[in-house]
Amino acid sequence: MDFLHAYTILELQRLLREGELTCLEIAAGCLRQIQDYDKTIHAFITVLGDAVLEEARQHDLAGMGSDRDAALPLYGIPVGLKDLFATRGVLTTAGSKLFADHVPEEDACVVEKLKAAGALLIGKHNLHEIALGVTNINPHYGPSRNPWDLARITGGSSGGSAAAVLTGMCLAALGTDTGGSIRIPSALCGIVGLKPTCGRVSLRGVLPLSWNLDHAGPLARRVQDVALLYSVIAGYDPHDPASVDVAIEDPLAHLRHGVRGWRVALAVGKFFEAADAEILAALHAAARAFAELGARVEQVDLSWLEAAARANGQMTQGDAAAVHRERLATRPREIGADVLRRLEAGAALSSTEYALARRTQVEMRHRLSAFFAEYEILLTPTVPVPAPLIEGADSVQQAGQLTRFTAPFNLTGVPALSVPCGFTGRGLPIGLQIVGRMWSEAAVLRAGQAYEQAAALWHTIPEIERARKPGPARRRG
Amino acid sequence: MDFLHAYTILELQRLLREGELTCLEIAAGCLRQIQDYDKTIHAFITVLGDAVLEEARQHDLAGMGSDRDAALPLYGIPVGLKDLFATRGVLTTAGSKLFADHVPEEDACVVEKLKAAGALLIGKHNLHEIALGVTNINPHYGPSRNPWDLARITGGSSGGSAAAVLTGMCLAALGTDTGGSIRIPSALCGIVGLKPTCGRVSLRGVLPLSWNLDHAGPLARRVQDVALLYSVIAGYDPHDPASVDVAIEDPLAHLRHGVRGWRVALAVGKFFEAADAEILAALHAAARAFAELGARVEQVDLSWLEAAARANGQMTQGDAAAVHRERLATRPREIGADVLRRLEAGAALSSTEYALARRTQVEMRHRLSAFFAEYEILLTPTVPVPAPLIEGADSVQQAGQLTRFTAPFNLTGVPALSVPCGFTGRGLPIGLQIVGRMWSEAAVLRAGQAYEQAAALWHTIPEIERARKPGPARRRG
Repeated sequence: MDFLHAYTILELQRLLREGELTCLEIAAGCLRQIQDYDKTIHAFITVLGDAVLEEARQHDLAGMGSDRDAALPLYGIPVGLKDLFATRGVLTTAGSKLFADHVPEEDACVVEKLKAAGALLIGKHNLHEIALGVTNINPHYGPSRNPWDLARITGGSSGGSAAAVLTGMCLAALGTDTGGSIRIPSALCGIVGLKPTCGRVSLRGVLPLSWNLDHAGPLARRVQDVALLYSVIAGYDPHDPASVDVAIEDPLAHLRHGVRGWRVALAVGKFFEAADAEILAALHAAARAFAELGARVEQVDLSWLEAAARANGQMTQGDAAAVHRERLATRPREIGADVLRRLEAGAALSSTEYALARRTQVEMRHRLSAFFAEYEILLTPTVPVPAPLIEGADSVQQAGQLTRFTAPFNLTGVPALSVPCGFTGRGLPIGLQIVGRMWSEAAVLRAGQAYEQAAALWHTIPEIERARKPGPARRRG
Repeated sequence: MDFLHAYTILELQRLLREGELTCLEIAAGCLRQIQDYDKTIHAFITVLGDAVLEEARQHDLAGMGSDRDAALPLYGIPVGLKDLFATRGVLTTAGSKLFADHVPEEDACVVEKLKAAGALLIGKHNLHEIALGVTNINPHYGPSRNPWDLARITGGSSGGSAAAVLTGMCLAALGTDTGGSIRIPSALCGIVGLKPTCGRVSLRGVLPLSWNLDHAGPLARRVQDVALLYSVIAGYDPHDPASVDVAIEDPLAHLRHGVRGWRVALAVGKFFEAADAEILAALHAAARAFAELGARVEQVDLSWLEAAARANGQMTQGDAAAVHRERLATRPREIGADVLRRLEAGAALSSTEYALARRTQVEMRHRLSAFFAEYEILLTPTVPVPAPLIEGADSVQQAGQLTRFTAPFNLTGVPALSVPCGFTGRGLPIGLQIVGRMWSEAAVLRAGQAYEQAAALWHTIPEIERARKPGPARRRG
């Protein structure tokens, strides 16, 4: 199983069922990838090596059983978690020195759900410190490196998760997204990431960054795997005050039914066109692919969403300063420079600025709701640039730049997916963002599946192989 | 028609239909009350004397027509508006010097709806300056005086509206409620006032106090009149970003169907028992009346709502400072002392405090939603004390005291009605607050109707008659 990560979860489930493969082989395959590459990549903070092998052995002994299949859709699948999901008995650092010894007593709600679906926890992923940033240049646990070019960032804050999924260190992961932290590393690493609707996935047991803008969601290599993970973790949690009880459409039921006749908006205008030419070209190529799939594609100027991106940034910093107010007051020297700067900016924000950001939130939700009465989905670039270099990166400045197209959909709460949509001339992945109306994850995933299949962009990773040998390829600029 | 205001709107409609009465007689009757009493009461800032008479004449000429009845449920009914609803061509001061010359070009959405239902605008009501306060001691337009005891406040900020309705200066009114501003004056003046569910009634054209906590709603002398007004003004407004599109149950359809078998919670515990003994006695008598009507009444400790009252106060001040930020910066000397003090406190609030209040809002909504899975309605006192004296009143301090039981339901957004439930030994009215789950205005009004009928508390006003003659009765303490 040298290329274990070339399989989808559904394919692995079939191989397990047919006895072609054991849970132990899968887990061992992932651990081998971690052993071979993670010294360079820094995708993990904690690896559960022996524990995952032991669990896999027990899974193999118990046997999958054909009728357990539906109830255990993630049977034997090694999954990683961004290191701010609480895991019972397992270190949960949030990428911070402040939580360097924190071992929770309970699993987060979504961790319970993954385990109940048969998944195996293989480890905890490196992230931007306390998730407040999108470079994943973590001063305490090392910068995550982009497998496509090790001199570049993975994006963040779920950057370790994206790199681990890409390189087969795990088959899927859960991240969180407050301004783009699932979608940005998914785009920069060339995998698939979903930010569900606000309130759809429980945040109980997840370290908050913003009580108003946080979302938990899955990352995987293929849309169908993301849909599968999403179907496991979605649902009302009476113990999470931000959870909302709205009926869930099974995302797998119509995943392959295409987008014929759908009204698709392509974001244009000053705000959305402030992106690299290669990225805009990929976006327009994706829009043509949707047209060829039978969708009616229209260009729509959505430059008014610029105010949403700005308000999302302010509210994130204000909320983060509120969440961490005691730590900020008593232990500022244990916080990394960029995160400290942003927390202090959040603490200095006036309630007037916060109240205006909150009003913008209400107005933007309203306006976007009217927009989505006209269109099923919206296409935008996920990130305006490919992965920046680690050297010389400015995490504070890049927070604004890289979240530009993703943050409006945290503020408004609508579901948004990033899917790979090609490469730059330098071979760096480009992400397409597919946004839908409230609670329409199934539609967004269906559009992502249609596009993924049409574009046939699924790929192997040349750079990760080159990374094993020193040489100029490791420092391509 | 000396006691015009002793009739309900439905009764007047019947009299109009039967030719026993003309629109002109009704309007003239209201104007006579204004002329006789408003020099003392200060319920109005603007009276539309000639205009309302002319409109009434035209109504009479056009004739009501039996088939116009349903479409024009407020045909010929003089209605007053708190002076922060925009009225086309009519001064709209918000009780402030800052808006002393403000004449809007458009009607507020709900004003359009009232006019379309046949109502006649008789004038604009005095209020607490910019609605930020509950005493209605307005330094620019005079203090509103409570018709039950002219030495006492009406409560506010819709205090002019409550006093005008009570004394038959109009048949009904619209007010706004951010922390209790419809319910408090309704309770202290002995009338009925409804704060609908957050998002149910359009706020387009209503001067904001808090973008998150404002509600517009009706005041009238009887529950059925409030239900009628509510049915006219409720409904989604695509031009108000805070408006929510949820189906409306006709509040009149089942208004008289009683509460047999309903699960009714009676608020007890430290927080809700911090009220005058007479007021608690009236509350418990009301609870017994509900039991006699066939409801199952249970005592429930809801002291945790104290945090909701506090957060509502903070968010109100923070939002008010944001709404009025430019006026506060450039024209502070034109603002009354108590309002200025509260705006300055709001401007000094940190985003951390605001974010914590917002988090409390989400938590309290969640917790109250679980509570209302168990109970149809909740009973509390509307206000912990009867109307305080004007002399020596401290508007800032009393904002906290008088909104204690009402503010939690602004923060959580659930509908709440105040109905008269007796008098203190001194003859001052007491209000019963009936709270329901989100969007259940019809249930809340039905409970109010059942109680009103059982308690037979509808009354005439002795003090207003005594007020015409000088004497010690005018200054009873």
